[in-house]
Amino acid sequence: MTQPPNPDRQIKIMSFPVSTGAHIAGWLHPSADAGKAHTIGFQRRTALTCERGLFDAMFIADAQGFRKIEGRDAFCRVDVPRFDPVTLLAALSAVTSHLGLVGTLSTSYNEPYSAARRFATLDHVSEGRAGWNVVTSTSENEAHNFGRDTHFGHAERYARAHEFIEVCKALWDSWDDDAVVADRVGGRYFDPDRLHGLGHRGEHFRVAGPMTLPRPPQGYPVIVQAGASADGQALAAATAEVVFSSNPAQAGAKAYYDSLKADVVAAGRNAGDCLILSAVQPIVAPTEREANEIAAELHRLIQPAVALSFLQMSLGHVVDLSQHDPDGPLPDLPETSGSQSTQARLVAWAKRDNLSIAELARHSAAGRTSKTLTGTPEQVADALATWFTEGASDGFVVAPPYLPDSLDAFVDGVIPILQERGLFRTAYEGTTLRENLGLKRPPSRYEAHPELHVEPEIW
Amino acid sequence: MTQPPNPDRQIKIMSFPVSTGAHIAGWLHPSADAGKAHTIGFQRRTALTCERGLFDAMFIADAQGFRKIEGRDAFCRVDVPRFDPVTLLAALSAVTSHLGLVGTLSTSYNEPYSAARRFATLDHVSEGRAGWNVVTSTSENEAHNFGRDTHFGHAERYARAHEFIEVCKALWDSWDDDAVVADRVGGRYFDPDRLHGLGHRGEHFRVAGPMTLPRPPQGYPVIVQAGASADGQALAAATAEVVFSSNPAQAGAKAYYDSLKADVVAAGRNAGDCLILSAVQPIVAPTEREANEIAAELHRLIQPAVALSFLQMSLGHVVDLSQHDPDGPLPDLPETSGSQSTQARLVAWAKRDNLSIAELARHSAAGRTSKTLTGTPEQVADALATWFTEGASDGFVVAPPYLPDSLDAFVDGVIPILQERGLFRTAYEGTTLRENLGLKRPPSRYEAHPELHVEPEIW
Repeated sequence: MTQPPNPDRQIKIMSFPVSTGAHIAGWLHPSADAGKAHTIGFQRRTALTCERGLFDAMFIADAQGFRKIEGRDAFCRVDVPRFDPVTLLAALSAVTSHLGLVGTLSTSYNEPYSAARRFATLDHVSEGRAGWNVVTSTSENEAHNFGRDTHFGHAERYARAHEFIEVCKALWDSWDDDAVVADRVGGRYFDPDRLHGLGHRGEHFRVAGPMTLPRPPQGYPVIVQAGASADGQALAAATAEVVFSSNPAQAGAKAYYDSLKADVVAAGRNAGDCLILSAVQPIVAPTEREANEIAAELHRLIQPAVALSFLQMSLGHVVDLSQHDPDGPLPDLPETSGSQSTQARLVAWAKRDNLSIAELARHSAAGRTSKTLTGTPEQVADALATWFTEGASDGFVVAPPYLPDSLDAFVDGVIPILQERGLFRTAYEGTTLRENLGLKRPPSRYEAHPELHVEPEIW
Repeated sequence: MTQPPNPDRQIKIMSFPVSTGAHIAGWLHPSADAGKAHTIGFQRRTALTCERGLFDAMFIADAQGFRKIEGRDAFCRVDVPRFDPVTLLAALSAVTSHLGLVGTLSTSYNEPYSAARRFATLDHVSEGRAGWNVVTSTSENEAHNFGRDTHFGHAERYARAHEFIEVCKALWDSWDDDAVVADRVGGRYFDPDRLHGLGHRGEHFRVAGPMTLPRPPQGYPVIVQAGASADGQALAAATAEVVFSSNPAQAGAKAYYDSLKADVVAAGRNAGDCLILSAVQPIVAPTEREANEIAAELHRLIQPAVALSFLQMSLGHVVDLSQHDPDGPLPDLPETSGSQSTQARLVAWAKRDNLSIAELARHSAAGRTSKTLTGTPEQVADALATWFTEGASDGFVVAPPYLPDSLDAFVDGVIPILQERGLFRTAYEGTTLRENLGLKRPPSRYEAHPELHVEPEIW
């Protein structure tokens, strides 16, 4: 399926500002603000830069625990402090006015009632700028932080995710848009006829409803996903409105794009109901030579043992790579119960580019599997424009290798060029994230199907 | 135990700004901003008024579901929309700089890892202004929203609460204060020697740890409680740093104050480690006549059927009062599995003042069991000063009957008088909630007891 030509089509951009940098050695760069990464001042500055760049949204990744790292010494070089995303984004909502606020929340170790309520609150306090990156959890430590001996298997995780999203949507619909009447004469703060129970009794959850607060301004927060395994892609085709895709090569990105758009249509939706954004890591400098020097310096700062630990983690801990020749090829791997798409991508990458274990480790640590774009603002803008106009994506997830400078360089250098070419907005189109992304506001299920009403149990 | 005379002792004030007003008919008052109560603009205005009044904190109550109300028609007049408190408070943290931010989170339908992380995040984004009102859940609807057929029994709720708080504190201690070293030379973002696992395996929770983010600026957020049952008071004596007390009469408040302070000391703490704040509902006007007119108008706006439903709910739904003579006395009641202290307080109140069912319903709906103070700024300040100096409380939880005007009237009228008398601050003493309340910052358990260290499971 080729993207139909559309001169009005515009690039959508989200940032993915990992505090310590998307590059594993980013925080070691001399200009990185390393010790401040977990402070609100640092986070505010990042959000304001994203809004200055007219980005659609900023995105905060998450896990409710640490990923396992081989070696206590490698650990403290690889993993990063993580705030609770919704709480952090709520704080950032008050210092921004148009920037979308997308946070990860796992369907594995949360309850849908609490999750739906926290995102509804974020959507209210931001006046319609919330997005939810739906993930399933893959680390044992997360399971152990929530009373379980082991994490859910791959299939169970996705079955749970499907039901979790359905329950959340039903909860967001449980107040009609006009349920708050504040009718002084009739003495009714809200209209009980416009509240709906759920009485949901599913395989994984039982939820009575209704929600404790009005329908979110956007109806539902924007549903975001990144899963690229077969299960992940099926979930995305059915429910995602934005999908993050990680492909270092344009051909692979385009194949994924066409395949997922076809799945979206097969799931009964319009192709445009699901935007696909490719992850890129931009290294931008006034001259190509300077940009290459930054890239080389970041590469030099990678410690081989740390890169190897990171690679083992990314592959799902299914092999002890220290037992293999670092200059030899990747051995055959058993299937992981972690992120299957990440493992598959790394294996394919090593095979295609004929990389040794040590090379794959360094490259994956540098790029974290996203596409690295190194060059002048013009060169980076050219690469993005080609990728976009040739139908490999609807836009980009910009992951700055280190902060704050590499994000500033992108916003100040690349954005104006994309604007000059008519490929990126010069002002926000609307006030909600949906309006800026061009996604429709979902009507409540009860508008078209009043017969679905379930009387709340609360009176 | 009498409060030792201390000329430097100052009143502590938190607000309890129920959006639709602490008075059940507050939102019907002509000046109330009824239809806006669930908007962020309304909430921001309230927070800024509290900070203008130099309040120690504002407090957001919560329940993850609705309380049962007899009658669908009464329901929509009694209950209120509820945001997720931590998310709302995070948004308010960005528009305030000194105001403490206290939110309710139940130990019944949450997991300690998620709860500890959300409050740690709130403490970080507010730079040390978070407080956690620890509650147990009492409504069937909450249980039904979280997959349970019935809510936990009274004793189990409190056992779970004790363990929940213990786990949260251990998680907050799981990074030493100086764990983030951002050591570029050694290449370590944080020091693995300064991270601690939990390996907690208790009766209700199993939590591996560590937390995913640095120790909160305050060490722990300030622990707040309101439970006044025997179990609730035991929990408060062991763990609470601020206790909300509801007593319409000064003698009762003083008896409770002395009893709880004695329990705090018996639990091995200093009496000053636990501040007791009395709930008051101020109706302040330039003249006594005007204040009485406002009180009378609010009273008139109460609908008898709504008041009766509210009373039945407050008593724990143990009796159908519509089967009893509204002008007769309250019948004998069976024990509730809900809030035992609320039931006991209402029964005692009816007996002491010889109230009929209808009178008790109206009075409890008006005051929601807190003390109503109606008068000029001087009269209200006099009452607060007497209550405080005679050792009935360490300060007040100010619950405005309607918003925004009655909060403004308190801040503009009463606060300056308390300041003139040297009973209330004229500027914030510090930047954290602990500093303003005069509470010490808890050291990590590992400072005094390094032998408690458990190696994290993550490397």
